[in-house]
Amino acid sequence: MKTELRLGIAGLGTVGANVAQLIERKADVLAERVGRDLRITAISARDRSRNRGFDTHGMQWFDDPVALAREAKIDAFVELIGGSEGIPLQAVEAALKRGIPVVTANKALLAHHGVALAKLATENGTELLFEAAVAGGIPVIKTMREALSGNDVSRVYGILNGTCNYILTRMEKEGIGFDACLRDAQALGYAEADPTFDIGGYDAAHKLAILTSLAFGTEISLESIFIEGISKISIDDITAAQELGYRIKLLAVAVRTDSGIEQRVHPAMIPARSSLAQVDGVTNAVAIDSDLLGSILLAGPGAGGAATASAVLSDVMDVAGGFVPPTLGLPPSRLQPYQRARMRAHEGGYYIRLAVYDRVGAFASIANRMAENSISLESIVQRKADHKGEGTAPVVLVTHETTEAAIRSALEALSRDGYLSGEPQMIRIEDLE
Amino acid sequence: MKTELRLGIAGLGTVGANVAQLIERKADVLAERVGRDLRITAISARDRSRNRGFDTHGMQWFDDPVALAREAKIDAFVELIGGSEGIPLQAVEAALKRGIPVVTANKALLAHHGVALAKLATENGTELLFEAAVAGGIPVIKTMREALSGNDVSRVYGILNGTCNYILTRMEKEGIGFDACLRDAQALGYAEADPTFDIGGYDAAHKLAILTSLAFGTEISLESIFIEGISKISIDDITAAQELGYRIKLLAVAVRTDSGIEQRVHPAMIPARSSLAQVDGVTNAVAIDSDLLGSILLAGPGAGGAATASAVLSDVMDVAGGFVPPTLGLPPSRLQPYQRARMRAHEGGYYIRLAVYDRVGAFASIANRMAENSISLESIVQRKADHKGEGTAPVVLVTHETTEAAIRSALEALSRDGYLSGEPQMIRIEDLE
Repeated sequence: MKTELRLGIAGLGTVGANVAQLIERKADVLAERVGRDLRITAISARDRSRNRGFDTHGMQWFDDPVALAREAKIDAFVELIGGSEGIPLQAVEAALKRGIPVVTANKALLAHHGVALAKLATENGTELLFEAAVAGGIPVIKTMREALSGNDVSRVYGILNGTCNYILTRMEKEGIGFDACLRDAQALGYAEADPTFDIGGYDAAHKLAILTSLAFGTEISLESIFIEGISKISIDDITAAQELGYRIKLLAVAVRTDSGIEQRVHPAMIPARSSLAQVDGVTNAVAIDSDLLGSILLAGPGAGGAATASAVLSDVMDVAGGFVPPTLGLPPSRLQPYQRARMRAHEGGYYIRLAVYDRVGAFASIANRMAENSISLESIVQRKADHKGEGTAPVVLVTHETTEAAIRSALEALSRDGYLSGEPQMIRIEDLE
Repeated sequence: MKTELRLGIAGLGTVGANVAQLIERKADVLAERVGRDLRITAISARDRSRNRGFDTHGMQWFDDPVALAREAKIDAFVELIGGSEGIPLQAVEAALKRGIPVVTANKALLAHHGVALAKLATENGTELLFEAAVAGGIPVIKTMREALSGNDVSRVYGILNGTCNYILTRMEKEGIGFDACLRDAQALGYAEADPTFDIGGYDAAHKLAILTSLAFGTEISLESIFIEGISKISIDDITAAQELGYRIKLLAVAVRTDSGIEQRVHPAMIPARSSLAQVDGVTNAVAIDSDLLGSILLAGPGAGGAATASAVLSDVMDVAGGFVPPTLGLPPSRLQPYQRARMRAHEGGYYIRLAVYDRVGAFASIANRMAENSISLESIVQRKADHKGEGTAPVVLVTHETTEAAIRSALEALSRDGYLSGEPQMIRIEDLE
């Protein structure tokens, strides 16, 4: 048996405590699998006194995670503090500079500094592993970096935020409004007190930025992602989607186009019979289209202490086994600059919901504005006018394939015509399989 | 850059030719990813003269694959001949005895000799990789062996045979009978001239035997698998399934029970809304339930030259990168003996379709035989009697959870009562999510 692998863990919240408990509880089988013992020799967290469910005997305590990374006698450093700047960044940099491999679950760190850290790792002859940073327990990083290493990827997309998927699933299954579902998600611990990072689409965007780099061999470009959250999705949209044979999901998509790479996170209507439409609740799913495999789909728990700890442990085991692939699948010097696709290049069908004043000329305005922008309509449904208040009728349009620019132009013209109450609702349709 | 990896490939059919073409076409990016060149230095196939779409210049030709494995100057041996006995077995053994890592797509070889070959690999300080042997391009071996290495698996199940899934999907979508669908599958190359291996469930069983070993750390036990194929599935069953909210799939299941491990391959009714029910056509899917991850699902192409070549290449890249995990996830000496679950231990609901003679007492016979065996019924549907011929009425029963032993006993008693025309049809119901 090889020498033991000495681990330093910084951050002992839910995931960190789970990792330490697992290494204690499953010590024998882990050692058998990888041919060497895993031993935690150094830890750091905010509160030293707390009992975290594992035996800290023999572990050196550090108040400062950066000092742990810089000084502890360790063979691998596990960063589970979270956050893209300051201490976690400094700690990871310190470990890499010593040539010590780093395992992290920190999506923000990767999305903001992934390429720089990959370079630092390479310069120091070590590597950075981050399976837990994207889609929790689903082995999507391993799949993209190793299993698909002979493939040219054309698209990667999926459901990357469990909070949003939980809310959308409950809205659909129980007919409850967005706000009530969000409150329940918060009560259940699926959403933060400030839910903006999740429901605004930013969490999914961080994960997508990382997947994009692995998929296309490009530098990470979080700031290029078009991001739209789910807070504007109403029960009316959910109901209309069901009637039209779709379900609404917060989709993250990165696709290679002629003009560059398109990255977007937004609510989308996807066919109710598609695989992704079956992904309910806090489950995540990632689909990858590539030249050799066609399409593969991975689905599973996108968050949670045990699932995330499983992914961290998988990386630790790879370090223990001596397999350290390049951080982003290629040596960092070979990553291509990110080339953003033309704005509004997205093509596909669109769902549009309008609240139209019940006046002569309203329907002609809709018809003309669509025709002027060369948008052909697959279906139009006008419901009975609501005669409470000003009397508006809900009108739902589904367009054939068109461009985002055409849709925006038509909706702006429609708004100027003065027949609409409030802003038009627009949801992209993705014709997935 | 490290020294090049010299490859010997035996078997240049569709998959082998694809692998060689890919290594030629993608040489640069593969070398970048893994830090060393891949070079095919030795090949063997049945017909030397055939053009297989890659440049054989500089490759040593062997008429005998065993001689290639024994003598060629290679760093890894790729076995793509197929078949469990004779030459492929001898060739793999010869390579392993030289301490040369072996990559194979050969499920029969693994299912029959996997443990012995794993031992041979370990004794000679090398390893055997076989991602392509199960579910084609889906990285299920890598996921189970590496990504789930900290998990205790409780169940692994899925759709492992594309031919059967193609036939069942077409029967359902187009209302075409089994025989016609099979002929089409043969015409399209999805089924062999002798389709028994696929439609009899044997192909799925070979793959399941391998997954079971990885899931539970046990020795491979192909002969313990309960196998039932799809040839008895009729359009009547497909229609009844749709009416009941189910779809019929050939399911392969391995589950840990109190009395041992249950392995079975058989048609099953699964909820139409479940993830596996969306898996159509030649697509495969594998679901894994484990302590840390709950449930994850992987779906993708289960066969085809490019997808299988992708999996072979993934293994070759792992060999090139120097990562050789134990063949079956654990050192072979630590594999547990396979402990088979008690016979007929399967518990769940059952679908039963009877052709009942239109006589007084028939219904009482059904009711009594079910009651005697403590089987409670969830639903009973009797259609109008068919008065062509002897006049039988189709009766469809759906039972609540019961045991296979109770069902068999009830059906045997029913048959003895003499009200049934032909054999009763019985399909297990799996309440998957």
